[in-house]
Amino acid sequence: MSLSDSSGRPAAALAFVLRGEHVESSHSGSIAVVSEDGTLLWQAGDPERLTYLRSAAKPFQLNPFVSRGGALRYGFSPADLALAAASHGGEPSHTSRALSMLQKGGFSESDLHCGAHPPLFEAAAADLIRRGEAPTQLHNNCSGKHAAMLLGCQMLGFPATGYHEPDHPYQRIVIDFVSRATGTESSRLSLAVDGCSVPVFRMPLRNLALGYGRLFGSGTPRETESEALARAKIAAAMAAHPEMVAGTSRFTTRIMQAFEGKLLAKEGADGVYGVSVAPELAGHMTNGKALGIALKIEDGGERCRDLIVVSLLRLLGLVPERLISRVEELAPRDVRNVRGDRVGEMRPAIALQGPVPMAARQSPA
Amino acid sequence: MSLSDSSGRPAAALAFVLRGEHVESSHSGSIAVVSEDGTLLWQAGDPERLTYLRSAAKPFQLNPFVSRGGALRYGFSPADLALAAASHGGEPSHTSRALSMLQKGGFSESDLHCGAHPPLFEAAAADLIRRGEAPTQLHNNCSGKHAAMLLGCQMLGFPATGYHEPDHPYQRIVIDFVSRATGTESSRLSLAVDGCSVPVFRMPLRNLALGYGRLFGSGTPRETESEALARAKIAAAMAAHPEMVAGTSRFTTRIMQAFEGKLLAKEGADGVYGVSVAPELAGHMTNGKALGIALKIEDGGERCRDLIVVSLLRLLGLVPERLISRVEELAPRDVRNVRGDRVGEMRPAIALQGPVPMAARQSPA
Repeated sequence: MSLSDSSGRPAAALAFVLRGEHVESSHSGSIAVVSEDGTLLWQAGDPERLTYLRSAAKPFQLNPFVSRGGALRYGFSPADLALAAASHGGEPSHTSRALSMLQKGGFSESDLHCGAHPPLFEAAAADLIRRGEAPTQLHNNCSGKHAAMLLGCQMLGFPATGYHEPDHPYQRIVIDFVSRATGTESSRLSLAVDGCSVPVFRMPLRNLALGYGRLFGSGTPRETESEALARAKIAAAMAAHPEMVAGTSRFTTRIMQAFEGKLLAKEGADGVYGVSVAPELAGHMTNGKALGIALKIEDGGERCRDLIVVSLLRLLGLVPERLISRVEELAPRDVRNVRGDRVGEMRPAIALQGPVPMAARQSPA
Repeated sequence: MSLSDSSGRPAAALAFVLRGEHVESSHSGSIAVVSEDGTLLWQAGDPERLTYLRSAAKPFQLNPFVSRGGALRYGFSPADLALAAASHGGEPSHTSRALSMLQKGGFSESDLHCGAHPPLFEAAAADLIRRGEAPTQLHNNCSGKHAAMLLGCQMLGFPATGYHEPDHPYQRIVIDFVSRATGTESSRLSLAVDGCSVPVFRMPLRNLALGYGRLFGSGTPRETESEALARAKIAAAMAAHPEMVAGTSRFTTRIMQAFEGKLLAKEGADGVYGVSVAPELAGHMTNGKALGIALKIEDGGERCRDLIVVSLLRLLGLVPERLISRVEELAPRDVRNVRGDRVGEMRPAIALQGPVPMAARQSPA
């Protein structure tokens, strides 16, 4: 790596993929574990790595819509809010909800600018093929986010046209909020274009972790009262409706279900992951505060991502005893051949550095 | 990485994925460029990296069938031979040919042990879904290889049952040949199970490169005359039928078509690639011998693989002037959003080390 404006620490090994007894491939990356007050508690690789948040930014991108009264004005249910913070699977339950959200403002599918891609949930994608139907923009995993952005523009009197452009007044409000929510100085924040055409945020990984810590936190500097209420409302909606945040069979949905409201999780494309842990679970590490975790897998590959997240939560002592086996099952380690026989294993290899050395690395054979 | 029995050199940066002006992700790995006489000419990362060849072994795995007379006995056409060395797309032209190969020995689809997976070629996979049909073992990208193995067992009087097992007499013959063809000492060769259930070979990357160099070469130590004839016959079949070696829209097929018989290419799963370059193109680097190239992308991800191969061929001066634009077009650099707009770029970053330093690295922004 040569990320000239990061700290320059190299990525660290995070997981190995073994075939038989030997390593076939490996994945490296960076991790930041941050208390909601901004204290960097644990790290691996480069916690300052300048990272495009991708869809891990969605809980923050949604705040301006809620804080300015959009959820009340348009009668959003918690499930609607969860879908507006989602990378959903394009299942019928997601697309019908996204459409109903658009219709609350008189919008239709064609007002979206996210583009159409096949549903992330394979069975939904196959259903479309069977019916001879092309995917629509409602199937885009970001359609809920875009629906809220369109309604937000309408509510604030901004034009819907060009709502995705970085200089559109609605996106300026979103950019300002994301910057504050993650505590990112403007000199450390830059923008590019996300897969769904809206601005994507690049910032140090520890700032993404801080934003996640604050999701379940008690307060954020420079946050208004309505923003704080919106933050709590979004967190509660995600916790109550994990099936809307991702979907059937998806790790993000299942790990939130397992933690029963004490943990929020959100993936971003290209190997990004954000986790917010409630004070009730994390307080022993944080003096009673919420905790945020951010992960970037250097190569953007996701086959070991869930295993890395589970391994990290366990290393940090955040998985209650009664949940350990259920949580481990969410990230299967087996590498299987086409016939389904076990031919190898994914093995986590996270070596956290922090206030006390935590030598938890599992070395490969 | 901690591959305890490799040289211990770290993987090197091979490509960056930029979004906007900045690096989003990166891919590292290792490269070995070897003359057919075994001279290591150029390297990146760790040319000794112990690497599972995966399907890059197929041209070698096929040799025993041909050298023992199987191609003549069963009337294999060059296209049949190419399919037996292929990771094909599961297109109708592939599955019908694999079935006809099986039938030459009275075998059927159910004799295969490769397992069934959806066709690699997306349009063929969608066609199956539309017709409500499940994929069969003929659609497995390895079905041609397995057909030749079954026929080889029949020809040599071995049982077809268990033909995929590492201690089956046919696999022992294959293992012996792959070891010799790549010049791999037994202490440096190990086996595991491939995705298609047959033995997979693990060896230093430079030995894979050597095997590829010898594909177009004039002779291999400890090779019998019939093995040499078989080697030439397999190479000629792959060169003549690139559409059988991979398939529609596939890089491997298209780059072989572009080089009009002077270059063989074969992918293996998990970021492996092998290339054989005829003396006519490579002779200026090799004193008139053939050249072999082997690549392993450390994370197994393949989004930058084609670009890395093209960049490497150009760095080595192996792309004739008249082919440069055609070859560059085979590995598009653009990163696009769902709507198809250009939002970033893949950028090769190969720094070859060799007899003369070749500083060809393109650093990211």
